Amino acid sequence: MNKKSLKSVKKAGGPRSNARDQLLEAASQLMNERDTIDISLSDIAERAKVNSALVKYYFQNKNGLMMSLLERDVSDGTEQLETLLHTDLPAVQKMEMHIVGLINTYYRCRYLNKLLFALLRDSTPDRTQEISDRFVKPAADAQRLILEEGIRNGEFRNVDPMLLYFTIIGACDQFFTAHFALKTVYNQDGIDDDLRKRFIAHTSSLLMSGIKAEPESV
Amino acid sequence: MNKKSLKSVKKAGGPRSNARDQLLEAASQLMNERDTIDISLSDIAERAKVNSALVKYYFQNKNGLMMSLLERDVSDGTEQLETLLHTDLPAVQKMEMHIVGLINTYYRCRYLNKLLFALLRDSTPDRTQEISDRFVKPAADAQRLILEEGIRNGEFRNVDPMLLYFTIIGACDQFFTAHFALKTVYNQDGIDDDLRKRFIAHTSSLLMSGIKAEPESV
Repeated sequence: MNKKSLKSVKKAGGPRSNARDQLLEAASQLMNERDTIDISLSDIAERAKVNSALVKYYFQNKNGLMMSLLERDVSDGTEQLETLLHTDLPAVQKMEMHIVGLINTYYRCRYLNKLLFALLRDSTPDRTQEISDRFVKPAADAQRLILEEGIRNGEFRNVDPMLLYFTIIGACDQFFTAHFALKTVYNQDGIDDDLRKRFIAHTSSLLMSGIKAEPESV
Repeated sequence: MNKKSLKSVKKAGGPRSNARDQLLEAASQLMNERDTIDISLSDIAERAKVNSALVKYYFQNKNGLMMSLLERDVSDGTEQLETLLHTDLPAVQKMEMHIVGLINTYYRCRYLNKLLFALLRDSTPDRTQEISDRFVKPAADAQRLILEEGIRNGEFRNVDPMLLYFTIIGACDQFFTAHFALKTVYNQDGIDDDLRKRFIAHTSSLLMSGIKAEPESV
């Protein structure tokens, strides 16, 4: 696969790419910890224990760093989804695994949506299309193929793939995007591993009940 | 109801409050049209055909205008929801009407989430709590009461009200918040009335299937 070979090339850069990975990991940690994507490049370099000149070397600027971080965080999930697509599991199981994977990605990288929308802000139509093609379309396409497979073989209802895309993303990401409401409405401090598991069980069960063919119609 | 009397007071201000309403309506229109909440106060005054000094008079600053706009857009929906809560309709129907109302609010005011998150950005914990108490908690509480009523009388499954709050908001708002993907992934220009109706039917049916008690368990 093209993407995989691209990835191995990127990963084969030795010590240099280690500094690059460390910078991305430092940015990711700081964005999660501080609950904001507004982290200074010098804070990132300090956390990564890397000379701050290297930020410019690898990413040019803050925007370049944000694009690379999105790439890092989204591409693993998309590759897993594409692998899942080509297994011979039932479509129901593929869709469930997709939902679980999506929630786990948001759990690990709670800044993902902020990052995406910051990059989209004031971007030209061409740039918006490029960002969408790289970070949104692959997952949306894979999700549509799983849905269509399940509709064809009677596992799923006749759900609109476009509308379902927004339902699934929204149902999975709101818990992390709007987590301020956890504290202010439900007096719940943060999302720990136990709450992550409860959220996965809840979301996966609720969405799958809405997608799966009704028992009497199978 | 306290809120209602507060509202009548605000609405009874005569010509002055007309200018205030016109400014809010102009801000709302421009934010929808330009798909951004970054609208200058002078553009808002120009669209409202109101002297721009009045912006300062009614709202102090941009932040004040944004708070008042959120108040205007959210309070009608919350009042309707509270009225709905006290009718003797089945919980299933109340929940469906709540979902439809929520989607219609996002359809009318596509900037709602951007506005909310802009106000929350860099706000103190006290301020975050205040914003949440005014704009988030009332709807979350009403939704919980409808859910609990339906669980008690066997209409609903034993769904966690906190987790469901995020599911419903996310499933309803993502279509509007991430509508760039409509164009870039699905080649769909904007959300017209027909698409709004399809989205309502899809979302309401999918979510309700995930909440309603399973036929065999009734």
